[in-house]
Amino acid sequence: MTKHLKKLVSPFVSLIFLLSMTSTGFAETTVSAEVQAIFNSFLFLVCGFLVMFMACGFAMLESGMVTSKSVSVICAKNIGLYSIAGIMFWMVGYNLAYGIPEGGYIGTFTPWSDASAVDTGYADGSDWYFQMVFCATTVSIVSGTLAERIKLWPFFLFAAILSGIIYPIVMGWQWGGGWLATLGFSDFAGSTLVHSTGGAAALAGAILLGARTGRFDKSGAAKPMKPFAASSIPLVTVGVFILWLGWFGFNGGSQLAMGTFDDAVAVSNIFINTNLAACGGVLAAAVMTRLLAGKTDVVQMLNGAIGGLVAITAEPLAPAPIAAIFIGAIGGIIVVFGTKLLFNFKIDDVVGAVPAHLFAGIWGTLAVPLTNSDANFSAQLIGVLSINAFVFVVAYIVWAIMKNTMGIRLSKEAELKGTDVTETGVIAYAIRD
Amino acid sequence: MTKHLKKLVSPFVSLIFLLSMTSTGFAETTVSAEVQAIFNSFLFLVCGFLVMFMACGFAMLESGMVTSKSVSVICAKNIGLYSIAGIMFWMVGYNLAYGIPEGGYIGTFTPWSDASAVDTGYADGSDWYFQMVFCATTVSIVSGTLAERIKLWPFFLFAAILSGIIYPIVMGWQWGGGWLATLGFSDFAGSTLVHSTGGAAALAGAILLGARTGRFDKSGAAKPMKPFAASSIPLVTVGVFILWLGWFGFNGGSQLAMGTFDDAVAVSNIFINTNLAACGGVLAAAVMTRLLAGKTDVVQMLNGAIGGLVAITAEPLAPAPIAAIFIGAIGGIIVVFGTKLLFNFKIDDVVGAVPAHLFAGIWGTLAVPLTNSDANFSAQLIGVLSINAFVFVVAYIVWAIMKNTMGIRLSKEAELKGTDVTETGVIAYAIRD
Amino acid sequence: MTKHLKKLVSPFVSLIFLLSMTSTGFAETTVSAEVQAIFNSFLFLVCGFLVMFMACGFAMLESGMVTSKSVSVICAKNIGLYSIAGIMFWMVGYNLAYGIPEGGYIGTFTPWSDASAVDTGYADGSDWYFQMVFCATTVSIVSGTLAERIKLWPFFLFAAILSGIIYPIVMGWQWGGGWLATLGFSDFAGSTLVHSTGGAAALAGAILLGARTGRFDKSGAAKPMKPFAASSIPLVTVGVFILWLGWFGFNGGSQLAMGTFDDAVAVSNIFINTNLAACGGVLAAAVMTRLLAGKTDVVQMLNGAIGGLVAITAEPLAPAPIAAIFIGAIGGIIVVFGTKLLFNFKIDDVVGAVPAHLFAGIWGTLAVPLTNSDANFSAQLIGVLSINAFVFVVAYIVWAIMKNTMGIRLSKEAELKGTDVTETGVIAYAIRD
Repeated sequence: MTKHLKKLVSPFVSLIFLLSMTSTGFAETTVSAEVQAIFNSFLFLVCGFLVMFMACGFAMLESGMVTSKSVSVICAKNIGLYSIAGIMFWMVGYNLAYGIPEGGYIGTFTPWSDASAVDTGYADGSDWYFQMVFCATTVSIVSGTLAERIKLWPFFLFAAILSGIIYPIVMGWQWGGGWLATLGFSDFAGSTLVHSTGGAAALAGAILLGARTGRFDKSGAAKPMKPFAASSIPLVTVGVFILWLGWFGFNGGSQLAMGTFDDAVAVSNIFINTNLAACGGVLAAAVMTRLLAGKTDVVQMLNGAIGGLVAITAEPLAPAPIAAIFIGAIGGIIVVFGTKLLFNFKIDDVVGAVPAHLFAGIWGTLAVPLTNSDANFSAQLIGVLSINAFVFVVAYIVWAIMKNTMGIRLSKEAELKGTDVTETGVIAYAIRD
Repeated sequence: MTKHLKKLVSPFVSLIFLLSMTSTGFAETTVSAEVQAIFNSFLFLVCGFLVMFMACGFAMLESGMVTSKSVSVICAKNIGLYSIAGIMFWMVGYNLAYGIPEGGYIGTFTPWSDASAVDTGYADGSDWYFQMVFCATTVSIVSGTLAERIKLWPFFLFAAILSGIIYPIVMGWQWGGGWLATLGFSDFAGSTLVHSTGGAAALAGAILLGARTGRFDKSGAAKPMKPFAASSIPLVTVGVFILWLGWFGFNGGSQLAMGTFDDAVAVSNIFINTNLAACGGVLAAAVMTRLLAGKTDVVQMLNGAIGGLVAITAEPLAPAPIAAIFIGAIGGIIVVFGTKLLFNFKIDDVVGAVPAHLFAGIWGTLAVPLTNSDANFSAQLIGVLSINAFVFVVAYIVWAIMKNTMGIRLSKEAELKGTDVTETGVIAYAIRD
Repeated sequence: MTKHLKKLVSPFVSLIFLLSMTSTGFAETTVSAEVQAIFNSFLFLVCGFLVMFMACGFAMLESGMVTSKSVSVICAKNIGLYSIAGIMFWMVGYNLAYGIPEGGYIGTFTPWSDASAVDTGYADGSDWYFQMVFCATTVSIVSGTLAERIKLWPFFLFAAILSGIIYPIVMGWQWGGGWLATLGFSDFAGSTLVHSTGGAAALAGAILLGARTGRFDKSGAAKPMKPFAASSIPLVTVGVFILWLGWFGFNGGSQLAMGTFDDAVAVSNIFINTNLAACGGVLAAAVMTRLLAGKTDVVQMLNGAIGGLVAITAEPLAPAPIAAIFIGAIGGIIVVFGTKLLFNFKIDDVVGAVPAHLFAGIWGTLAVPLTNSDANFSAQLIGVLSINAFVFVVAYIVWAIMKNTMGIRLSKEAELKGTDVTETGVIAYAIRD
């Protein structure tokens, strides 16, 4: 018996199934409501823990990209922000997003509490968990960009505001059934809602914070100068692989259901497109850097994977595989040129989060109508502009207020000693041969 | 269509479901026994592989916390102990725990063999797998505490005794239906059975083994002295994130079922409480160290996550979210002060496993009656005292016998050269710029 | 209520189940076709993402095993090969394997496209995803062996040929229902089809490429000489733990179904045997190196895990647990002696992939008839010889053509500078105290 054929369902059972289809006539599925609700909840939990693990991916990616003077603090920021986001999203975020009136702008300031009922289709807590890890992802995007010169506790304060207020508001506009949903905006798993939101908040912070001391002294130098070399490429790599893994949960779970065969088919095809887009992003960045600079830049390949993944996130279901590859490849190319663009503007994005999450997120969202005929370009443009403008402006105001009150930037002496020594008092590496 | 609303089960199917509820009257669930058994087994396998991955988390946490002279041996210990635990739990452990008579003290010395039947509710092997990884976790807790001065093979011998005899006995007292279960002791996923057991066994070893040479020469110094600095904070971080991820399986799988909607709701709420308790532990440790020492200690934040997770493990289902946050936060605070306590007693716990697993485990177990009205404080106290006393005394005797026969401690020369050179002959890092 | 007993399915539901068994008489399962198809697809997706994560495991294992001059390029190779394999397996691989006529030799050169139907038993895309990650695994095996002296882009070209043509052809011979399946060859999850294929392709490359400069200057030295010391043992360790985790998906998912209770039992027992074989491999390598060299070689323990896992992969379902331990232990011993063998032949396998994947794969495949009475030794021998010969010869020809056209080996100057500097321009570590 061959591997491919040996597990076919017995013809008898299939026959019963077909007969039941015929006799009911209008039934879309033969699966009972309770079994559906279990499958749906199981999908949320499995996909949720995959997305939760992305917090680890970001922590490793960022740990590897910063210099070895700032690794412990990056670790503290990442474990801290995930914790803050978890509590804030329970305390206000969830209902600020889902308590929104239809077509409205903002929900209610009430904590989440369990309202499970089988006819809602899933355990309420499984949905909370899945949405919470999305919220945490948004904040994770910010921490790397601002590394090596931001104070720890102001960052934590911003993390609380972003996870508790800013992200839930834009989330509600679309996924809570607010005004963008009414308008026909389409963002399946959050190219804009999650990734651009994180990227725009990071960009606002990077502009106000300024570059690391000495970063742009020799302007125009396209390569990272020695003092700013990434501390560990294998950590960046393990981070990106973890993110790629988590993205199957991110996009696959956004189908929000696994209770019918149609859902199983959809989730499977989302896995495929998510994977192919990342493949496209990696290879496009590899070819591009090889052609432009003569060497195959591993950091851009790794960030190219992220760019490809972000790009497909707005619509991972509709595209044919070949389209997914191209959408991802363009995401990867955007990362390569976006990195140069920021460099030219002397904006210091330590890990390249703005090109990968903001720029590739814009591309992915605008590209939805190319493969999904239910979407239209004008709604996509309105969604992209309104969310990015809102997030950028609010984040800029929050950063500016903090800058002018508690201060957000370390002293030059502290920065030169390294954030690990001054902020957490724990050096990251003590390795002796 | 909004994300939140679009996947509601069709009203027709819900109606059928409600009618079937009414007509049978006493049926708690509409899910067939076989489908339930598949869901339950699937839960065991998914949660089981998450807990299995915790072995990797411990390996990384400990690799990062030891000095760079002892990293290879920590890796050898962790892959070795997981292997030993797997074989011992098959050969004697499972039936030593589950072969126990009702209300009894010890089971039978027979290997596990498959006894699957659909009316037991799950595939027998899926339960074995899930219980095995718990056993391995117990042993993982021990390896870090004793690092840098213990001989490798005596440690492996202890790992065999702990995983094959000691842990299964206390496991049987409660989860096998032994005398503690009869008494009304409550420990949902093992704050005491797993975590305190590991912590108590580690403490016994640490006392008999003594501190690393030079560790306490300058008594009272609260900060790790330079020669004992942790080798890699990012490895500690990836370890803690992996443990956090694995804990969703640890606590969620301990619901032992996913076959009804009520189970799905329970597992979901366990995920939420597990997450919030860890968040509480991280933030409490962050605030505490910032207030006490002026710097935000990343190591204590990371260990605070473990403390919060251990604390919620005894009862992750009953607490409201706000209670879970506080239970975890107290776990994190216990880690901070427990670390100081051990330091004052000059007990050298290299990775802080005793505060995080033993002390926070005691707290979590005693706190169960606060949120679960079925539990009572006296039974909790009896469980905590009896298990910890039994494990500590037996472990102490085993360590003492080994100390006086084969010896458990490396020579001073071997220790100063580093365990990597003397025990495994493989240096951990060979990094050149 | 005890943990073990509290979740028994209610007797009422069990009774219904038993009655339905009796009334239908010939029904093997009570699970409807659609629910089965969802379970099966869910298994493919969950096991698939576990196998996908093995790409990360290989990247870390290899990053840790190479010298610190070649880590960035190993990262580039691993993220690149996974991307190439994903695209090639979509574009030609899947149908080259599954489009094969019964008993035939080769399928069709057409891209995969979704042909989901509930009566096939699973979502077509979930199967594609699961098979794709197997294809990527095959290529991952090759990258480590050839590290530190191969050019990057010729490697990528070979990755495309292996993932798009060579692997799919041998895959089709067996799992596509080709001539080896007709012959009665048995290779449950791919000891030969995946692991030996990767190992044989790597061996062909290693022979043509030659050893790293200076590697065998002092012939007969059994220990790695200082300049070739592994850069990071903890990275090797995290890599092996990730591979071990992924292998539950690799072998468990190869049951190809989770839709009946019998499937759940089978997948569970596969998890157990997979775990026990790895345990056996680790401990056998530990004992062996301790006895032979006086020290417990952590690298061989880690590779022993891989050897045990590869050995059980050909038949993870039939063996009793004790047999699984022995099959794995012999796999671990094969790794120890296979490493010495290659060293004696002056074949430079940087990570030990040939012993772990090729040699242990041959053992595991030939051992199938020992526990599975449906298999026979002669068919196993024909399968092993034909696949390994085919892959080795074709890979050798491909490598030879590339060697004589574009060249596959770096110049001696480039090699001595390190591949990171010359190929990707990014140094792997920039760590300062």
